Amino acid sequence: MKIHGRAYRTIWVAPDGWSVVVIDQTQLPFAFATRPLASIDDAAHAIKSMVVRGAPLIGATAAYGLCMALREDASDAALSRAYDLLVATRPTAINLKWALDQMVEALRPVPPAGRVPVAYARAARLCDDDVATNEAIGRHGLSIIRDIAQRKPGKTVNILTHCNAGWLACVDWGTALAPIYMAHDAGIPVHVWVDETRPRNQGGSLTAYELGAHGVKHTIIVDNAGGHYMQHGLVDMCIVGTDRTTATGDVANKIGTYLKALAAHDNGVPFYVALPSSTIDWTIEDGLRQIEIEERSAREVTHVLGQLSDGSTQTVALTAPGSPAANPAFDVTPARLVTGLVTERGVCPATRAGLRRLFAERAG
Amino acid sequence: MKIHGRAYRTIWVAPDGWSVVVIDQTQLPFAFATRPLASIDDAAHAIKSMVVRGAPLIGATAAYGLCMALREDASDAALSRAYDLLVATRPTAINLKWALDQMVEALRPVPPAGRVPVAYARAARLCDDDVATNEAIGRHGLSIIRDIAQRKPGKTVNILTHCNAGWLACVDWGTALAPIYMAHDAGIPVHVWVDETRPRNQGGSLTAYELGAHGVKHTIIVDNAGGHYMQHGLVDMCIVGTDRTTATGDVANKIGTYLKALAAHDNGVPFYVALPSSTIDWTIEDGLRQIEIEERSAREVTHVLGQLSDGSTQTVALTAPGSPAANPAFDVTPARLVTGLVTERGVCPATRAGLRRLFAERAG
Repeated sequence: MKIHGRAYRTIWVAPDGWSVVVIDQTQLPFAFATRPLASIDDAAHAIKSMVVRGAPLIGATAAYGLCMALREDASDAALSRAYDLLVATRPTAINLKWALDQMVEALRPVPPAGRVPVAYARAARLCDDDVATNEAIGRHGLSIIRDIAQRKPGKTVNILTHCNAGWLACVDWGTALAPIYMAHDAGIPVHVWVDETRPRNQGGSLTAYELGAHGVKHTIIVDNAGGHYMQHGLVDMCIVGTDRTTATGDVANKIGTYLKALAAHDNGVPFYVALPSSTIDWTIEDGLRQIEIEERSAREVTHVLGQLSDGSTQTVALTAPGSPAANPAFDVTPARLVTGLVTERGVCPATRAGLRRLFAERAG
Repeated sequence: MKIHGRAYRTIWVAPDGWSVVVIDQTQLPFAFATRPLASIDDAAHAIKSMVVRGAPLIGATAAYGLCMALREDASDAALSRAYDLLVATRPTAINLKWALDQMVEALRPVPPAGRVPVAYARAARLCDDDVATNEAIGRHGLSIIRDIAQRKPGKTVNILTHCNAGWLACVDWGTALAPIYMAHDAGIPVHVWVDETRPRNQGGSLTAYELGAHGVKHTIIVDNAGGHYMQHGLVDMCIVGTDRTTATGDVANKIGTYLKALAAHDNGVPFYVALPSSTIDWTIEDGLRQIEIEERSAREVTHVLGQLSDGSTQTVALTAPGSPAANPAFDVTPARLVTGLVTERGVCPATRAGLRRLFAERAG
């Protein structure tokens, strides 16, 4: 996607040919800054501190973290250590493990001396695949939006999204936002209700930033407001991303997704989840019991980064001093509340049978 | 309730005998400051700008606003003008109209020359009645908490609340928080999940401040998190206030209440609404269609007041510059999602029959 007229991905190899550069998402929307990552520790820190975030981008960053580790030591033992360090950076997104597994599968058969170039080539392919996958998700999602548009000719299609599942969450395009960009580009009038997505405001900062840069009409709302708009017929569909989806279609996504899915269900609004198949954890069936939910720092709730009137940014306290806070980062939306899963191979029901139909070779 | 060991109400007549003093709730939790209101315009501005908020306190402030207007001009025409100005300050809370109607009913039969002392006496009684009403709501709600506590002996009762329906929303005690204070005082172990309640953070600022001052265990969470805790059995009941309840039990309350009620319903968690009967609008039956929802400034979404590390407070921007925002202040929770209404006369189902049983003389 373009920033100030220049095409960007969210992660790329620097001109030195080995370190990588990412967009520092903790500074958006107030500043667009890139940040070099020159070691596995840099990569791990970028993931943990959410300099990079979004399930697909976390996977890509981990893949390059592994590459940088192998430059120091390409032995089997070092490969295992690097894997273990990176896979533990964040617990919920399964793409992280998936990407690292892809890397290890490619690297194990290669003698240590030959591993570094293979690793960089595999990481690059992983990024290219992510772009192609999201482009396919976009096309399949577009047909859903087109159907809605055809049922209300000349009128705007109102779409609600939660958190950021746009190109900033991926290498490019995005998952949930890819269909929206394609609909906009195809001339379908769309308007997006952007949940601000407390506590880290990925909606109000990242999604609004992306949509604004692309010229897509949107309105930022607090996370509390979506149900009200659904009650009043002002939401035609919801679409969100996911950090892990079970083999039965339960969906872990940013905290609060479950509440929007309940409201969609209560008001007959279709609720779609967009995902690359790398986000499916084929080994589990019960999202509520089996997906580990990351508990992040209470400070993300009690404090927020904002911009002062002089343009500088500062972290301010929001809450009564001394009051404790809790910060679960994700929740699980049961499959029964999901209208359909939008994957790179098409749209399917959020059921074991639905997923099996599209991914017979992996569904077991 | 006590602040720094001193007993306060949220509104009182100043030593001069005619102006009134309120706690400036826009400065909490960072500073405890009082603010004098010396005219009807001061009172109207305090309500609009949310220096005072909470349905019962809005009513009390409007009542004193009327008193101050009559000191200038006690004619019938002036009384009508004052009524019209005050009743338009905020559209959703029906207590505002109720309180003003009570005042006018007491004042109309009195000749203009005698109206001022009658007005002050009526306003004072309105405040005293609010305290007594909330104390009764607290006792009825306490029995619900006591029942839950008896079913899990020795364990903490976890209660989720949204926004602030505590003593800061009323003259004293609070509606939804009154039962919690009484349970705590009775030695029942309670813990409150406090929704921060964006955009104005009445939970993270006011409710957490109140509970902390009274020594009640609590945890601030983002508005997105309550459903997750309900899914995991960590919420025993929800209790919230309301700004207007229909004759059939639909409940308008702070935006986001509906989402929590959906989650409670989905997880079998009882969802109670605490209210003085002055909050019931006996003239309407369909909350979704008939209750006007106030749209407040987008700036409340895009900017927030926080405290810098030096202790000063500042308003900071949170969102991508140029992105529009919308700010509906309330939503409507349909009666079907409400387990019970906790009133000053007892607990009843959120139905016409339930309300009629308790308030036969008003239900018509």
